[in-house]
Amino acid sequence: MYDFSTDSAACARAVEAGLSDYLTGPRLSGPGPAADRVVAAMRHGSLEGGKRLRPLLVRQAAAIFSVAPEAALPAGLAVEMIHCYSLIHDDLPAMDDDDLRRGRPTVHKAYDDATAILAGDALLTHAFALLGEPTTHADPAVRIRLVTELALGAGAGGMVGGQMRDIEGEKGGFSDGEIGIMQAMKTGALIRASVRMGAIIGGADARALSALTAYAEAAGRAFQLADDILDVTATPEAMGKATGKDAEAGKQTLVSTLGLDGARKVLDNTVNEALLALRTFGPKADGLRATARFFASRKN
Amino acid sequence: MYDFSTDSAACARAVEAGLSDYLTGPRLSGPGPAADRVVAAMRHGSLEGGKRLRPLLVRQAAAIFSVAPEAALPAGLAVEMIHCYSLIHDDLPAMDDDDLRRGRPTVHKAYDDATAILAGDALLTHAFALLGEPTTHADPAVRIRLVTELALGAGAGGMVGGQMRDIEGEKGGFSDGEIGIMQAMKTGALIRASVRMGAIIGGADARALSALTAYAEAAGRAFQLADDILDVTATPEAMGKATGKDAEAGKQTLVSTLGLDGARKVLDNTVNEALLALRTFGPKADGLRATARFFASRKN
Repeated sequence: MYDFSTDSAACARAVEAGLSDYLTGPRLSGPGPAADRVVAAMRHGSLEGGKRLRPLLVRQAAAIFSVAPEAALPAGLAVEMIHCYSLIHDDLPAMDDDDLRRGRPTVHKAYDDATAILAGDALLTHAFALLGEPTTHADPAVRIRLVTELALGAGAGGMVGGQMRDIEGEKGGFSDGEIGIMQAMKTGALIRASVRMGAIIGGADARALSALTAYAEAAGRAFQLADDILDVTATPEAMGKATGKDAEAGKQTLVSTLGLDGARKVLDNTVNEALLALRTFGPKADGLRATARFFASRKN
Repeated sequence: MYDFSTDSAACARAVEAGLSDYLTGPRLSGPGPAADRVVAAMRHGSLEGGKRLRPLLVRQAAAIFSVAPEAALPAGLAVEMIHCYSLIHDDLPAMDDDDLRRGRPTVHKAYDDATAILAGDALLTHAFALLGEPTTHADPAVRIRLVTELALGAGAGGMVGGQMRDIEGEKGGFSDGEIGIMQAMKTGALIRASVRMGAIIGGADARALSALTAYAEAAGRAFQLADDILDVTATPEAMGKATGKDAEAGKQTLVSTLGLDGARKVLDNTVNEALLALRTFGPKADGLRATARFFASRKN
């Protein structure tokens, strides 16, 4: 019987330990010794926090193919480093200008803007260095597929492109369809990459990869929808960050266009869509099923 | 007979065309369509400019192993994208705050700070996406080695670490040795990665790779030293950017500690060191030899 809270807590602990091991001077050294200040800022921006949902998705997708959690961890760390870099850059004054993240000062507040830019750049860069290490997967062909998957998920047609569209959308009117595309890229692309990377590690065939992609795309929409709903309904204390920001900024979300009840209904349908995509998989996909349900029920 | 100006001009043209082909919506698409604004800013920050010295080094190092220029191009484009992203982020108000680059408005001036941050992030990310493509090299094991080489050269123990040290050094006193480490990382690491990536594409054995690494490290020092000298001696018109900035900022360089004549003497010695590292290679290394000499004689 899959237990979500046990597995997700074990995954979060493994991610915390794995990031703490990797983000040290010796591991990050290159032609020269890693600069202490940038290492410290990278740690500040990635340790002690977050639900580590993306590494959990890598782990759960890999579990379908009987891959042990440890074997899915390095790829999970790489995705998490991309997620953390994006938060560091998003929080900058030139972007969302946030002072707090997970209840602590953001990296540019704890250090300065230049250090935050560099720490983000370094986390992004070392995500790929980590994927290059033989410990990530014995087969170089698998490692390079992970690189491609993560880069396309994080790039101009993925996460970064979604952030760009989000900024542009704040200025002009977005249609519902455009909100959907923006969100599919901004949040969805990395969730999709996480699930697919787990599947790639597991040696999924084309049919399984396609089913898991459909799961991931629905799960990503559910995650974002829940986020938009929580921005309206949750307290800053529960979230560890400011809430009500979307409405304050006059930002269009599916909650602002469909209303809270309408958005909740869409959320339920979307979770069901994610579950349906897993129908050909047996109990080994219970992890992914639990995470899709968690996305809809989470309180922070 | 190797002709530097012919080969470097041919390389620059190939890089310009290669970047222009790659940096388009269809090539950069991922789970979603690439965001137009970020693609435009990526192009602004990387097309029509620069001497493309890093791709030239990839090409020249690969030429030692009889690799055709076209076969070394994709890796060269990836290094150049890393170089261009670093310039975009360096120019930001939070970093060097430069308005002009190659005689044109910097990306944050032509667009805005948020777009410049995202365009830099996207160029960095897609450098690795490009290395992942089978057209970069048929063997996935070679492609993943290129990823590792580039990531470590660009990361916290390479270029980004060097930028961090540079910012820290502006505040406090640097010893000559610390200046050397900073420069070896800030500029040298990517030059080193370029040469090594060419060697890796060429299937260099350990001994050849080691000799070429020694060449690259000396060439990188020569490049930086020439840059520091030009900051003192060249006009802004010749450089296409502000000069005299180091002295104005009270920044320590080897010119400020050794004087102009002393720095020129060290530069000559460093070029000879680079040439000496190539002694076991025949005329196929003439390209790298010419580039080392060019570093010492360039006027901008």
